[in-house]
Amino acid sequence: MLELNFSNMMSEVIGEKGISEKQVEALKDKVAKAHDGISTRKWNELAFIDLIKQDTSEIKKIADDIKRESESFLLLGIGGSALGPKTILEALSPMHNLKKTPKVFIYDNVDPTTLDNIMSVIDLEKTTVNVVTKSGSTAETMASFMILYEKLKGHAERFVATTDPEKGPLRKIASEKGFRTLSIPPAVGGRYSVLSPVGLLLAEVIGVSADELLQGAKEMHDRCLEPELWKNPAYMFGTLLYLMDVEEKRNINVMVPYSDRLKPLSEWFCQLWAESLGKLGMGSTPYPSLGTTDQHSQLQLWMEGPEDKVIVFIKIDDYGVDIKIPEVFKDTPIGYLGGHSLSELINAEEESTELCLAKTGRPNMTLKVPVIDAYHLGQLFYLFELATAFAGFLYGVNPFNQPSVEEGKNFTYGMMGREGFESKKAEVEQARQKKVCWRL
Amino acid sequence: MLELNFSNMMSEVIGEKGISEKQVEALKDKVAKAHDGISTRKWNELAFIDLIKQDTSEIKKIADDIKRESESFLLLGIGGSALGPKTILEALSPMHNLKKTPKVFIYDNVDPTTLDNIMSVIDLEKTTVNVVTKSGSTAETMASFMILYEKLKGHAERFVATTDPEKGPLRKIASEKGFRTLSIPPAVGGRYSVLSPVGLLLAEVIGVSADELLQGAKEMHDRCLEPELWKNPAYMFGTLLYLMDVEEKRNINVMVPYSDRLKPLSEWFCQLWAESLGKLGMGSTPYPSLGTTDQHSQLQLWMEGPEDKVIVFIKIDDYGVDIKIPEVFKDTPIGYLGGHSLSELINAEEESTELCLAKTGRPNMTLKVPVIDAYHLGQLFYLFELATAFAGFLYGVNPFNQPSVEEGKNFTYGMMGREGFESKKAEVEQARQKKVCWRL
Repeated sequence: MLELNFSNMMSEVIGEKGISEKQVEALKDKVAKAHDGISTRKWNELAFIDLIKQDTSEIKKIADDIKRESESFLLLGIGGSALGPKTILEALSPMHNLKKTPKVFIYDNVDPTTLDNIMSVIDLEKTTVNVVTKSGSTAETMASFMILYEKLKGHAERFVATTDPEKGPLRKIASEKGFRTLSIPPAVGGRYSVLSPVGLLLAEVIGVSADELLQGAKEMHDRCLEPELWKNPAYMFGTLLYLMDVEEKRNINVMVPYSDRLKPLSEWFCQLWAESLGKLGMGSTPYPSLGTTDQHSQLQLWMEGPEDKVIVFIKIDDYGVDIKIPEVFKDTPIGYLGGHSLSELINAEEESTELCLAKTGRPNMTLKVPVIDAYHLGQLFYLFELATAFAGFLYGVNPFNQPSVEEGKNFTYGMMGREGFESKKAEVEQARQKKVCWRL
Repeated sequence: MLELNFSNMMSEVIGEKGISEKQVEALKDKVAKAHDGISTRKWNELAFIDLIKQDTSEIKKIADDIKRESESFLLLGIGGSALGPKTILEALSPMHNLKKTPKVFIYDNVDPTTLDNIMSVIDLEKTTVNVVTKSGSTAETMASFMILYEKLKGHAERFVATTDPEKGPLRKIASEKGFRTLSIPPAVGGRYSVLSPVGLLLAEVIGVSADELLQGAKEMHDRCLEPELWKNPAYMFGTLLYLMDVEEKRNINVMVPYSDRLKPLSEWFCQLWAESLGKLGMGSTPYPSLGTTDQHSQLQLWMEGPEDKVIVFIKIDDYGVDIKIPEVFKDTPIGYLGGHSLSELINAEEESTELCLAKTGRPNMTLKVPVIDAYHLGQLFYLFELATAFAGFLYGVNPFNQPSVEEGKNFTYGMMGREGFESKKAEVEQARQKKVCWRL
C-alpha cells in the first residue's frame, strides 16, 4: 500500500514555513462539504469513481486479437487520451519497443515529422490503429485518423475506436465502416479516463493486467471513503497543496518521482491538476520533474530560489532489480561508492534532498511506493484523481470542465476554413497586422 | 536566421499587463554594465563563448572510429552532461534507435531498472561507453561507470572519457587505463557545455556535423555582439523574462516548442535558466512544455489561472516534411480538416494560442525557427546561453555556480559511508527519528 509522509509540510517539523494543525482544522467545514459532494456525486463527472467496477472482458478480447494480428499498435490521441496510456506504457513496460511486440507508438501531436517517422518504421498493414477521442471530433486526433484511414482504405479491421458510446463523428464513422469500438462512459472526462478503455486497452496489449490496475484503484478508493481528513490520503494530499498555494503563496508544486519509469506519471498528474483547477484566477502550477536527474538541474532553484514551491517526492521501495557497484578504484575519491548498489544510491539521494529542503524550512512531502506494478500504479492514479476532484471543492471551481481552451479552438477553426468561423479568421488577420512592430 | 517576436510582451500591444518601453529603457545602465562584463569576461566561465572557434578534428576522428567499431553508443552523464546531448539526439535524429546505428543510449540517472534494461538490449562488447563528467567525480555517473568498467574489464578501447583536461578521478583513471579522452575546457561549466565535446561527440556519432552546430552558434554570437539592447536578441530575451519576473511578479516562464523534436530543448533550457539564476531568493521558474500537446493539458491554466506566467513559443517555419489531410468524411463535422496539411494545422494552433493569450493581456513571445537543423540548433543553444548569462548580471547573481546543491551531496556521502562525512550520516539518522509522526 502507498504511504504518504507529510511531516515536512508541517510547521511542527519544519518551522514557520510549514502548515499548522490549526490551519488544517480550520478547513473542517469545507472538507465535510467536499466529502458530502463526492459521496452524493455533486458532479456527474465523479463517475470516474465507478470505473473501478467495470467489466474488462471486451477490452481483453480486443487486446488478444490485436496481439495475435499486429506487429504494431498505434494510438492516436491527445491530452488525457494519450498521457494516461503513455504513463502505463513507460511505467509497466519500459523500453518496450526494443524488447517486445506489438511495438507501441503514441502519436499525440500534429507534428508531421513524428507521424512521418512512425510510418517509416512500421508496416501499416500489420498495425492496429487505436483512435482515442471522447468527443470524436478532436482536431489533432481526427486529422491523423483521416490520414491513416486513407492510407488503409478498405481495412476497417485495422481500426479500434475508443470514444463516446453514442455521440460524435468518430462513433458515427466507426458504426458505418464497421470498426471495432470501445466506449468511454459519457460522464468520464478525458483527464480522468486512464482507467477506462482509454488506458486499459493499451495495458492489455502490452501484457499488463487491466484487472490489477483496477484492483489497486479499488483499494485506494476504499481507503478514501474515510470522511476524516487526517486519515484520508487523497483529501490530505489535496488539502496540503491547496493550503500551500492559497495561504502560503506557494504557487508551484513539483512532482519528483525517483524512477525513470514514472516520468510520464508526473506529466499525467500535471495535466490532471492544471486543467482541473486552473480557473477563475486560481490554481497552483504542477511541475513535472525527475529524480535524481533534476537534482543536477532544478535543485539549486528549489533550495535557494524564491519561496514559491512545494516539492512532492515519489520514493520507490523496491526497484525490482538492483545492480551492485563493484569495489574498484578503491584508492580514488570515488572508492566509497564500491560495495553499495544503485538502489542504495538513489534512495540515499532522495532522502538527502528531502532533508536539505526540510532543514531550510522548505516544504516537501513523500509518497512511498512499495514497487512499480499495475496494482500500485492503479492506486496512484486513483489517489491523484480523487485528490484533484477534492481540491476542486476547496478552490470552489468545477474540476471537470476547461472553458478557456475553447477560444483557441475557434481561431484554429477560422484559419482552417471551418464553416461558421469566418469572423475568427478575420480577427486573426487583423492581429497579424498589429504585431509587426516588435521583432528581432 | 532565428527571429524573436516580442510584440505580445509589450504594453503597447497587450495593454497594462505588458512591459512598457520605459521599463526597458530604465534598465539601460544595468544593460551597459552587463555588456561590459560579458565583453571583458568578468567571469572566467564566460569561456563558453570561445567554444564557437574550437578545433573539432579530434572529435570527428573518435566519432568515425566509434561508427566503424560499435553497434551501440552509451553515454553516461547527468545534468548538463546529458541534457545537451539528448537535445541534439532528439532534435536532429528523432526515433534514432528504430532507424539507425550505432544505437544511442543516454543513462542520466541511477535508476537500476533503466541500466538493467539498457544492458538487456545492447551487446556490451560492441558498445562504446562515453563517460561524461567535468569534475570526474559525479556520484551518479561514476557509479554507472564503475559497473560498466567491471563488466568490460580489460577493454579500455570501449571507453571514451569526456572530462577536465587534467583534474579529477576520471582523468586519472583514463590516463592509467589508456581510454580515449576528450577535454572539456576547465572554465566551461556543465550546463554551458553542449557545444563542447560533451554534445559534439554524440552529434558526430549520429551523423550530425559538429561544425554546422558551431557555425550556427557563431552567427548568433556575431549578432549578439551588438551593445544596443533593442537590437540584441539574447539581451532582449533575458531582459523581458527578468522584467516580467521582478517587476510584474510573473515567476514562471513556460517554453513551448511546437515540435516533438524540441521537447528536450526546453528541458535543457530549464536546467540552464534554473540552476544559473535560482539564487539568493531570486530566479523565475522555467517550465518545459510542448505544443500542440500541452494545449490539451496546460492551456486552461495559462489562460484562466493566476497571472503568474510568461509563455515563450517556438514556432517552426518548415518541418522538412509535411503530410496532407485527405478530403474524406466531407459531410461530417470534421470535414473542414480535409485538404489542409498537418503543418498548416500545427501552425494555426500555435498562432491561435498566441492570440488567445494576447487578447486577455497575457504576455507571450515567439521564437521563429526556419527549420530544425544543426545550424539553427546551434543558434538556439548560443542564444539561450548568452541570454541566461546576461540575466545573471541583471539579477546580480553569479550565473555559473550552484552552491546549494552541495549540502545534499554531503548527506549522500554520509549515507554511502564516505570518509569524513560521519557527522552527516548522524544527522540523517536523527532526522529519521523526527519524521515518523505525520504519515498516512
